Amino acid sequence: MYSPVMNYCSHCGSAQLVLKIPEGDHLARQICEDCHTIHYENPKIIAGCLPIRENKILLCKRAIEPRYGLWTLPAGFMENNETIEQAAARETWEEAKANIGQVSLYVVISLPHISQVYMMFRTQLCDLNYAPGIESLEVQLFSQDKIPWEKLAFPVIRKTLTHYFQDRVVNQFPVHVSEMIPPVA
Amino acid sequence: MYSPVMNYCSHCGSAQLVLKIPEGDHLARQICEDCHTIHYENPKIIAGCLPIRENKILLCKRAIEPRYGLWTLPAGFMENNETIEQAAARETWEEAKANIGQVSLYVVISLPHISQVYMMFRTQLCDLNYAPGIESLEVQLFSQDKIPWEKLAFPVIRKTLTHYFQDRVVNQFPVHVSEMIPPVA
Repeated sequence: MYSPVMNYCSHCGSAQLVLKIPEGDHLARQICEDCHTIHYENPKIIAGCLPIRENKILLCKRAIEPRYGLWTLPAGFMENNETIEQAAARETWEEAKANIGQVSLYVVISLPHISQVYMMFRTQLCDLNYAPGIESLEVQLFSQDKIPWEKLAFPVIRKTLTHYFQDRVVNQFPVHVSEMIPPVA
Repeated sequence: MYSPVMNYCSHCGSAQLVLKIPEGDHLARQICEDCHTIHYENPKIIAGCLPIRENKILLCKRAIEPRYGLWTLPAGFMENNETIEQAAARETWEEAKANIGQVSLYVVISLPHISQVYMMFRTQLCDLNYAPGIESLEVQLFSQDKIPWEKLAFPVIRKTLTHYFQDRVVNQFPVHVSEMIPPVA
């Protein structure tokens, strides 16, 4: 779900776009010099689940780029006109065809360099009738000692799993709010 | 921060936009028939604070529409390239010029009918040097019995304040995750 480069005003079709700070604002925006529309861009929410079955976690092997062939928790872009919980459950169904119970907010991670916010929910897997959706090559339950740590798709997935295995020791699962910034090369 | 009507493809300037479901997708999107760009739209995050000073809460009287003249907690649209906590603190500074301490995630409310997610943080007001920012007419501390319940700007503000005063009784402030849907007329 990439954002295409804005070359034309989507409201009036003009090519007279300038990047400047609107009056009373503090950030530069794409502004149309013809119709004066201000084009705002805002962060996107990625909602997903940590599906749990006894002592195991359900992971999906990605069938799409980026990170084709690496393992992830089911998650994806929240859509208009749904709640975050609905988005997390929908993505879990689409990617893992998993029947899940109620979802509980568990991990919130801001990724300011790519303007995304991950919101991951804990949930119980109701049965073993999971299967790869169109965006997954494979879906599999992993116990802690079998998690493919070296083949995880994204740092946020590693962080979410790490929180879970630490919290499971004390059986306390507070909401974790943090940020991740890529290491300076 | 309204979304202008999309009449033209922002990528190639064509007026040949059609609303249809892309292959492999499940929702209708604006798609350009000339350059094939798919224009996605996603929910926006509104981040804000519940600033606390002893037994009082800081509210702002809105100097802007919608809900001009009504009272709100400082909050606004999260921007690209910031964390949610930074967004909440920035809005609290912009609207109330308030010096605050650390922020703790407290209330998350999905508003699917308008594709927004509110994320409100508890925080301590460090001093009494607050003042109205450009979007506020007035900024004032209110004890529970003085909250202008009938003059609050938004239902999410009422809900956040209600959670706080209930939780304060038992001195436990878990993260509350919910949704609000407008009553059917």
